[in-house]
Amino acid sequence: MSIKTPSDSDTWKLLKKGVAEIISELELQRMLKASAESGKPLRLKQGFDPSRPDIHLGHVVGLRKLRQFQEMGHTVVLIVGDWTAQIGDPSGESVTRPMLSADEVRVNARTYMEQFFKVVDRAKTEVRWQSEWFGKFDLSQVIRLTSKFTVAQFLARDDFAKRYQSGRPIAITELLYPLLQAYDSVVVQSDVEFGGIDQKFNCLVGRELQAMEGQRPQQVFLMPLLVGRDGKQKMSKSLGNYIGVTEPPDEMYGKVMSIPDHLILPYFELVTDISDSELAKIGQELKSNTVNPMELKKQLAREIVGQFHTPQAALEAQAAFETTFQRRQVPENIPEFVLSLPGGTGTDSLSLDIPQALLATRMVKSRSEARRLIAQGALKVDGKSVGQETIPVPADSALTITLGKRRFARLKLVSVPQK
Amino acid sequence: MSIKTPSDSDTWKLLKKGVAEIISELELQRMLKASAESGKPLRLKQGFDPSRPDIHLGHVVGLRKLRQFQEMGHTVVLIVGDWTAQIGDPSGESVTRPMLSADEVRVNARTYMEQFFKVVDRAKTEVRWQSEWFGKFDLSQVIRLTSKFTVAQFLARDDFAKRYQSGRPIAITELLYPLLQAYDSVVVQSDVEFGGIDQKFNCLVGRELQAMEGQRPQQVFLMPLLVGRDGKQKMSKSLGNYIGVTEPPDEMYGKVMSIPDHLILPYFELVTDISDSELAKIGQELKSNTVNPMELKKQLAREIVGQFHTPQAALEAQAAFETTFQRRQVPENIPEFVLSLPGGTGTDSLSLDIPQALLATRMVKSRSEARRLIAQGALKVDGKSVGQETIPVPADSALTITLGKRRFARLKLVSVPQK
Repeated sequence: MSIKTPSDSDTWKLLKKGVAEIISELELQRMLKASAESGKPLRLKQGFDPSRPDIHLGHVVGLRKLRQFQEMGHTVVLIVGDWTAQIGDPSGESVTRPMLSADEVRVNARTYMEQFFKVVDRAKTEVRWQSEWFGKFDLSQVIRLTSKFTVAQFLARDDFAKRYQSGRPIAITELLYPLLQAYDSVVVQSDVEFGGIDQKFNCLVGRELQAMEGQRPQQVFLMPLLVGRDGKQKMSKSLGNYIGVTEPPDEMYGKVMSIPDHLILPYFELVTDISDSELAKIGQELKSNTVNPMELKKQLAREIVGQFHTPQAALEAQAAFETTFQRRQVPENIPEFVLSLPGGTGTDSLSLDIPQALLATRMVKSRSEARRLIAQGALKVDGKSVGQETIPVPADSALTITLGKRRFARLKLVSVPQK
Repeated sequence: MSIKTPSDSDTWKLLKKGVAEIISELELQRMLKASAESGKPLRLKQGFDPSRPDIHLGHVVGLRKLRQFQEMGHTVVLIVGDWTAQIGDPSGESVTRPMLSADEVRVNARTYMEQFFKVVDRAKTEVRWQSEWFGKFDLSQVIRLTSKFTVAQFLARDDFAKRYQSGRPIAITELLYPLLQAYDSVVVQSDVEFGGIDQKFNCLVGRELQAMEGQRPQQVFLMPLLVGRDGKQKMSKSLGNYIGVTEPPDEMYGKVMSIPDHLILPYFELVTDISDSELAKIGQELKSNTVNPMELKKQLAREIVGQFHTPQAALEAQAAFETTFQRRQVPENIPEFVLSLPGGTGTDSLSLDIPQALLATRMVKSRSEARRLIAQGALKVDGKSVGQETIPVPADSALTITLGKRRFARLKLVSVPQK
């Protein structure tokens, strides 16, 4: 197998692009060079938690990096964390979770991998399950592993330190998490571990443990955390601020459109392939206010939807969004009118004379004005364009009517049974 | 089996005698009562560390208490800590120790039990090995166990807190120690755990874990720590301030005699069977200085040697001690004299004319004074009474001569070969 040499400065620049931290850059460069010379690919370790099978854009940041390494000829080792999953997310508030059944793990792992291989090359990936080694891990191995690190070393981990100082509980089990993750590195003989910057501590424990076990210590490749749609916290399913890679195009497009303006540039950098020069241009435009951020977001949303669906789907999502977006322009406090309609009750379908309704709400001054506007396509009922003058409506219902861009009314229909 | 009821207040008083703390006294009384009514003996848990097989008087304090419970009809469950032994002593400075081989554990356990059953009734003891349950303990059990307690709870343990605050290392493994000890209580269904007061934390973890597992939580019976011969630190083999129960009578007697006076009363209380009234009398005598503490120590030493050997051995040890003790009365800085003796060299046996030697050292003023004192039994050579006027001595040797209580001299003999 031919492996690209990173002495090509463009390649090295590409690998480093958008990365938060590399430990250590010099050693990694040497490793890459040696690998290119020997033709032996590096083993790039990436773990995943099968209790959280859905991949969102926050994960994609790292997966795209793995893909770049694969394109140079290296091998991804994907660790299915079916044991660490029992302990809980190491990087934040955590609770000990009930053990997933073997079936649940299998189902979740399948879901995860379907999504994972949308970005990462399946042919250059080795999938390993923690249960291969932890399924037969005994107490003496636990004792041996736990004897190598101190409580103080682990409580120095940022999130542990904060929780400990503020009196929030840390289960003793949680101290095992970094140890198990580190042991994975020893077992799979990891050369480079990939993770979010919040995984720094755990990845470094792996590095140390490998050295203690006489292995060449892994390098650590840390990706920045993608901020979620709320613009504040890291993207996470449990915080509800995520954009999932399997979401339908309309949903995905709409979610990208909802990000605050200050995330436009980092999203372009971390989850799209646009060139450095284009990135610089966007940054410049945002800074100088020479572009409507909405237009940049549309471009971003197209890029992202195009990546996980198709460019065609991206265009359709954009069209749908634009329609929906107009509908969303209805202000919250609009005048409300009650309109009596002759006809049945309940769910009976009645007929609404729209020019009459527009007159009743004083949105127009005459039936002819109403007719003209309807003919011009200025009328929307519940956000949808309506070209007819009469529409069927359920008895006892409510509608929102929009006329052009500025006139709104809400109608409550009260049916008056005919005698 | 008939079990004594502790409602007999004398029995309860006996059980409580010399105990540091009972958790909880009320629940234990209820348990004892229920046991007497049902005829079902209580299970009294006592653990031991097979990496430290020698029992000293510090351990005896608790073993005597177990014996008292056995005499009421209860069962001792002795736990051979062949797994916790790998982790280290929980109650102090500890280092992770290499795993003992199965053979070492067997040999040490045999040694321990020989000593243990000098105090505890073998017929009412069940011996259990941790390897019965920890030999097949797997990672999911470790995770389950460690999830029940927090790091902060454990770091509150006195010795951990001190070490953590002063920056001394605590291996993560050490947090497992109290958990494993607690799990023992669950497995053997302990009713009462016995330990030194420094075991309080660990015993309480056992109590909590049993409750979590739906068992009736054990009561905890904590014994005071016997202070070692140095009068300062708890008796411990590693501190060298211990008195071992298998030491020969002379050694044991001498070690008891070497304790500082303030330990006389606690030793009487904790390791002898003397009655409360006698104890009170000794306390009174010590307080009012109406007794020579040396005499009380001799009584104490006799009691202790008698307990682990025989009363006869105790008397012999006393006699030997008294001899040795007299020898020890020789002051350290005594005048030294060099005496020339006609005769051979090296180890040849020469003849020493004692009255002449006494004259030479100016310890007497005349041969007749020397003879009179020798006849009265006032002479000792190297601590032993000598009644003759001439004794054989090796050439080129040295002797200490005592005359009465106040006159001492050291003689260096230099042989002058006869021509």
